[in-house]
Amino acid sequence: MHSPQQSPRDDVARLSALLERLRARSPRVHCITNAVAQNFTANVLLALGAVPSMTLDAEEIAAFVRGADALLVNLGTFDRERRRATGIAVETAGREVPWVLDPVFIDRSARRAGFAAELVARGPQVVRLNHAEFAALTGGEASCDALAAYARAHKTVVALSGDTDLVADGERVASIANGHPLMARVTAMGCAGSALIAACLAVEPDAMRAATAGLAIIGVAGELAAAGAKGPGSFAVAIVDALYRLDGPTLTARARVT
Amino acid sequence: MHSPQQSPRDDVARLSALLERLRARSPRVHCITNAVAQNFTANVLLALGAVPSMTLDAEEIAAFVRGADALLVNLGTFDRERRRATGIAVETAGREVPWVLDPVFIDRSARRAGFAAELVARGPQVVRLNHAEFAALTGGEASCDALAAYARAHKTVVALSGDTDLVADGERVASIANGHPLMARVTAMGCAGSALIAACLAVEPDAMRAATAGLAIIGVAGELAAAGAKGPGSFAVAIVDALYRLDGPTLTARARVT
Amino acid sequence: MHSPQQSPRDDVARLSALLERLRARSPRVHCITNAVAQNFTANVLLALGAVPSMTLDAEEIAAFVRGADALLVNLGTFDRERRRATGIAVETAGREVPWVLDPVFIDRSARRAGFAAELVARGPQVVRLNHAEFAALTGGEASCDALAAYARAHKTVVALSGDTDLVADGERVASIANGHPLMARVTAMGCAGSALIAACLAVEPDAMRAATAGLAIIGVAGELAAAGAKGPGSFAVAIVDALYRLDGPTLTARARVT
Repeated sequence: MHSPQQSPRDDVARLSALLERLRARSPRVHCITNAVAQNFTANVLLALGAVPSMTLDAEEIAAFVRGADALLVNLGTFDRERRRATGIAVETAGREVPWVLDPVFIDRSARRAGFAAELVARGPQVVRLNHAEFAALTGGEASCDALAAYARAHKTVVALSGDTDLVADGERVASIANGHPLMARVTAMGCAGSALIAACLAVEPDAMRAATAGLAIIGVAGELAAAGAKGPGSFAVAIVDALYRLDGPTLTARARVT
Repeated sequence: MHSPQQSPRDDVARLSALLERLRARSPRVHCITNAVAQNFTANVLLALGAVPSMTLDAEEIAAFVRGADALLVNLGTFDRERRRATGIAVETAGREVPWVLDPVFIDRSARRAGFAAELVARGPQVVRLNHAEFAALTGGEASCDALAAYARAHKTVVALSGDTDLVADGERVASIANGHPLMARVTAMGCAGSALIAACLAVEPDAMRAATAGLAIIGVAGELAAAGAKGPGSFAVAIVDALYRLDGPTLTARARVT
Repeated sequence: MHSPQQSPRDDVARLSALLERLRARSPRVHCITNAVAQNFTANVLLALGAVPSMTLDAEEIAAFVRGADALLVNLGTFDRERRRATGIAVETAGREVPWVLDPVFIDRSARRAGFAAELVARGPQVVRLNHAEFAALTGGEASCDALAAYARAHKTVVALSGDTDLVADGERVASIANGHPLMARVTAMGCAGSALIAACLAVEPDAMRAATAGLAIIGVAGELAAAGAKGPGSFAVAIVDALYRLDGPTLTARARVT
């Protein structure tokens, strides 16, 4: 993360402190997420010490969000129930509970892309997406400048997953060169990464840093998990173990954040 | 399980017989459970030879419950569809199909706590919950006496998960000192334990014994699984294997039921 | 697969070519499937290079099906949302997108069996089911002749899972003697097999061959996975790894298709 005041080294050191806060505080993360991702997302959060909840019920979700430290809104398998839940949850979150938007598969449905744009206008701290989703949301190809421009225009942080992840808040840009190709072969890996960013937001008010940390943590865990994996099945198991065992020095040594 | 007529040794021997009946009879267990827990719960039941079904559809659920040997009602991710399904399922179960109530996260939503209280009045054979949920349901802290009083007043069996599990039916109290801290790091572990109690109810008419057995079985499996686990990912896999391989002698030797 | 024009050896050689096409083309498979099976099904598809999507929303599903290369309709945990989604999806698929029907648990609910019969009339390329489901659908016991008669009458391919799998299209009958008993101890294994057949349909226009290939691929992967598994937990992980690593020569050498 480049900015006038700090060096990349500082950022990496901050990662370690953030990881410790995550484990120490056990933040509650309420997740509106797709049916495919719910179990894996919950296990990823629990592995890092966060406490997931996932209700979508319109009559209960406000109570859950009020008691949460962060919120995730993921648009996979989006339906009427999730749309209604999202409206209430985002309203309840207001300025108290930071939230992450993950606009899954908006490149497949114009309707969903439109809903994602409406949600961006409601002020998520972070929008995490891949290249196809960024193009669907903005109408243009992803680049450092395009991310920064979108982040500035919408007063949010954009976190883009790819071979190298990019995070931009309009002033600063960070790149995270961690991760492993097997991550693309396990369903809900991106969704779990967004949930992890939400957990980081619960313990780090600077959304740029929280997003960078979340992507670095899951990327480093992915590299560690790949070492012993025989395929995406054992990899999905190993990444949960790796998140559970990840410590500050390992994270600091392996994170390639610039 | 202390009672005038029997020694703890007898209870442990009974566990082994119950486990054999479970495998021999392959009971059908219909589960109204949360979206996060469905897959793991089904695999836990299958590992012990039980046959899970999970439909929530109002027009089908009566047929499924009529054909089932036990029913689970879990309040995680509770919504209108699950509320309606539960009404029909409990009505259909009547006195024929024993059922377990798992009032997940009622400490987070007053509305859900109220619904749980209504369900207790409809006569579940067992209510399984943790300390926070017990407090939300009863307004008081969990203790042997509080459990017994609640069980007596509501003519049910209360099974409380914690460092040491407690089971009370108003006359008898059992404690189960098995399990492992990693169980709290895997989502749906408690939900799966409740499903396992439902499976035990299908082959053991004494609900006190069924609840005790279910908690002992999953607790012992948790200890066996923890031995080789590198974190919650491999632990969740290993506990399914351990349930599948668990035999009567191992269960009898390791169960710490008093 | 016996037919006048070809020998079983040819069929096995074709399997290898189909597997290569699957990995090369990464077909999109839209799945209307049950809540228990969604995660495992997605991971099985990803392991073979296919790209799953799972939305059920009535306002989005047509866009997803139009962009898909194959469709799965699985009746597990069937509800109003899935019923409505299925109507739109099958209508959208028309003659462009091949689809597979998996009538899960129709032996448990007369209503669901009736809906399955209606869906068969709408022209799925393949119907995959087990013996109890075949009996519920047709009113008779499964046999080579019964399968062929049903396939002929309904202009579809019937793929029957059992100790030996059978596939019939009215003229040809194939048997696949692969697989492992642990496959019956993991939830959603049959559902994932149906999804795999859908993926095969995306790259093989002969539905008879696609169904045979799908069952052979998952059966061989099951045998490979069982070799190192300690129970159904590690088996479920290992079969995803095995699907990811499966190559043409291994498939050709191990497939017992006649």
